[in-house]
Amino acid sequence: MNTTQSKSVQETKHFVSLESLSLEEIMGMIEESLRYKQGDLPPLFNGKTVANLFFENSTRTKNSFQMAERHLSIQEIPFDVTTSSVTKGETLYDTCKTLEAIGVNALVIRHPEAGYYHELVEKLNIPVLNGGDGSGEHPSQSLLDLVTIFEEFKTFQGLNVAICGDLVHSRVARSNASVLKRLGANVVGCSPESWWDDSMGLERKELDDVLATCDVIMLLRVQHERHIMGDIFSKEEYHERYGLTVERVAKMKDGAIIMHPAPVNRDVEIAGCLIEHDKSRIFPQMTNGVYARMAILNRALGGQS
Amino acid sequence: MNTTQSKSVQETKHFVSLESLSLEEIMGMIEESLRYKQGDLPPLFNGKTVANLFFENSTRTKNSFQMAERHLSIQEIPFDVTTSSVTKGETLYDTCKTLEAIGVNALVIRHPEAGYYHELVEKLNIPVLNGGDGSGEHPSQSLLDLVTIFEEFKTFQGLNVAICGDLVHSRVARSNASVLKRLGANVVGCSPESWWDDSMGLERKELDDVLATCDVIMLLRVQHERHIMGDIFSKEEYHERYGLTVERVAKMKDGAIIMHPAPVNRDVEIAGCLIEHDKSRIFPQMTNGVYARMAILNRALGGQS
Amino acid sequence: MNTTQSKSVQETKHFVSLESLSLEEIMGMIEESLRYKQGDLPPLFNGKTVANLFFENSTRTKNSFQMAERHLSIQEIPFDVTTSSVTKGETLYDTCKTLEAIGVNALVIRHPEAGYYHELVEKLNIPVLNGGDGSGEHPSQSLLDLVTIFEEFKTFQGLNVAICGDLVHSRVARSNASVLKRLGANVVGCSPESWWDDSMGLERKELDDVLATCDVIMLLRVQHERHIMGDIFSKEEYHERYGLTVERVAKMKDGAIIMHPAPVNRDVEIAGCLIEHDKSRIFPQMTNGVYARMAILNRALGGQS
Repeated sequence: MNTTQSKSVQETKHFVSLESLSLEEIMGMIEESLRYKQGDLPPLFNGKTVANLFFENSTRTKNSFQMAERHLSIQEIPFDVTTSSVTKGETLYDTCKTLEAIGVNALVIRHPEAGYYHELVEKLNIPVLNGGDGSGEHPSQSLLDLVTIFEEFKTFQGLNVAICGDLVHSRVARSNASVLKRLGANVVGCSPESWWDDSMGLERKELDDVLATCDVIMLLRVQHERHIMGDIFSKEEYHERYGLTVERVAKMKDGAIIMHPAPVNRDVEIAGCLIEHDKSRIFPQMTNGVYARMAILNRALGGQS
Repeated sequence: MNTTQSKSVQETKHFVSLESLSLEEIMGMIEESLRYKQGDLPPLFNGKTVANLFFENSTRTKNSFQMAERHLSIQEIPFDVTTSSVTKGETLYDTCKTLEAIGVNALVIRHPEAGYYHELVEKLNIPVLNGGDGSGEHPSQSLLDLVTIFEEFKTFQGLNVAICGDLVHSRVARSNASVLKRLGANVVGCSPESWWDDSMGLERKELDDVLATCDVIMLLRVQHERHIMGDIFSKEEYHERYGLTVERVAKMKDGAIIMHPAPVNRDVEIAGCLIEHDKSRIFPQMTNGVYARMAILNRALGGQS
Repeated sequence: MNTTQSKSVQETKHFVSLESLSLEEIMGMIEESLRYKQGDLPPLFNGKTVANLFFENSTRTKNSFQMAERHLSIQEIPFDVTTSSVTKGETLYDTCKTLEAIGVNALVIRHPEAGYYHELVEKLNIPVLNGGDGSGEHPSQSLLDLVTIFEEFKTFQGLNVAICGDLVHSRVARSNASVLKRLGANVVGCSPESWWDDSMGLERKELDDVLATCDVIMLLRVQHERHIMGDIFSKEEYHERYGLTVERVAKMKDGAIIMHPAPVNRDVEIAGCLIEHDKSRIFPQMTNGVYARMAILNRALGGQS
């Protein structure tokens, strides 16, 4: 491992992609997440403050970071995009620099522009924690996915993972495919032709051909708000050909699990009745998201993990 | 009293209507509210979290719950309807289940759909506290109304109460009429023909005929946002015929009080100059609302009251 | 000094303009701000609550008050204008009286109407802290400007200050011109004819004529949202004739500073590359804003400063 690179990341404390973290750091954060889950007392951050800047809608990610902040006794400075000076044309950089100037210790940012964080990481003196950058990455979601898989299987080595659905518009797919391969998993993609992305370097498979051997079926959200599915499939056609139906789940092997970053389009990516199925980890993923974000905040604001 | 029913309510800890609570429970909550008001220290809830989901506008109810939460050291997880995944089409159930998954301990919900809570109460493992369901009920408002009346008269037995105005669109009228009758009060309704609701089982009276004998004049808000009053009356006509004017207040008996759930339409339901009149309990109702909501939160999250 | 007037201000604890404060009080608050900055422990306000009502957009002022509240352990009752009953037509007075009734201890208010606070100050029993009233005043901004100048020069006596730009629409210009003159500074204005305001009683100068002798160049924001600059100048013309360019900064004397209330229109009032220049106090002003607002909150809710 390149110690120099790892050290400089440690110094900046930004968290913008998993790509820039060493496997050692990633595993450390996964294990820290699970220690939080087991109830080991978290370090307290009395007096530390965070602002959560969500320039795109969110329930899970924002509320999950807010819950993590409260668990760590970090104070939130509420930031409301719609009533901020951003509406007066202030740049993202000036807004963030303002929050730094008033003493905010870290920024959680979701922004529609992929790579929005490059200028910030270079010029700010406080850490930027990426809550999703357009169709770029969503590294805190990736980390919670890793926590959920590791909690289940205690390893990534040799696991068979299928990432299914709208690969081209998903910011989770790219992060997850890359980091899971680095961690030793076998990753394939199952996707309609028009949503396939060759640049991810995955082998393309039919879902029905991999169902029986997969350990993890990782479904992606059909991004209604990013493009119109109706031009390509009806919801029913998509569900029939690419969705997880009751019949398909019956073919999954014992111990295999279903994941989805949510929000779920019921009866599109997955039958509504399967969301709380025994094999489904959809709600447990959200629970783990709080612990993963505690690890992210601890890395940014605390001491060594 | 049906002990079995009372016990199962105790177990679920939901608070969705006063109808489902025994009189013993209601009186217990009224007395608890007044103990909070007298400054008896509330139990502390370190580590408990609540999310307030308001799918309809509110100042009083939302801020009052938030104040009650702070008095009880309950942490709020801020939930902003307009920037949540509800705008991506996520169902109310999935949103609530998400908040449960990230560890929120109770949900305060206002929603435009009457009875929105039925599916939630059945499937969630955390309490739902109803902050108003369309033109259904508004049980925390009813409880604070009861607290205000009980604080004044120390009893409900034999009190003469007139509920005045837009009965058919009011979610407070129905709850209050029902629970006040259960508690032994004599309740009549004063309302224009077009806003009368026979199903509430009240006797219909002219306001001028009951002014001299009423202990409580309970005014209802004209719901401009739910229907257009202009089709039926002008504001001035309504005030003249059904509103509380200076002349009408002069005919009220000593010790009688005026109530209104607010926000008030000044010079429609009541003359603006009467809102802070000696007989008016409009702002004291709001003060009592905080204590009533502390009792509601304590019932949901604390031990036995 | 008029002791009687000063005493009644002390009793009301409102903070609506610097005009109504004695110089002794203003200097006391400046020194208190700098003691907070030096890390003297602030008094704690356990159990005190504040609501921040921003009827106009803001990042700096709102977040800065929120940070000051957290430093003082004051609890915030979140108030969201867009989802409040103000949208049901409730008056500002009734909204504030409601917050008083539920136990809020002070109100921070920004409102588009100049002098909105007159009725409130007369009738409320809790302090109103003016976060900006239309094109009226912005006294907390003025106080932080004073803190920044005093921190730099340790006096106001004899300082040469130029207030530059859109004087007529600026709520900061009027407050600052008046209080700086009361404190002994020499204040001139540099402004296009159409934005000049004779009633401020300043001598009008060309920026280029005062650059070499000024201690403080105080730039004002061009208020795009209050009037269309395009009718008068292009951005480039304005920058050329009235803006702070790299060439102009080179002519400023040693030790002189640049101030701006922000948000900055980059390359209009000031060249973008100068915002973080050695002479610029633009971000340090924001840092001082937190300490100034702690002094304001302490005056409203605490004991004698």
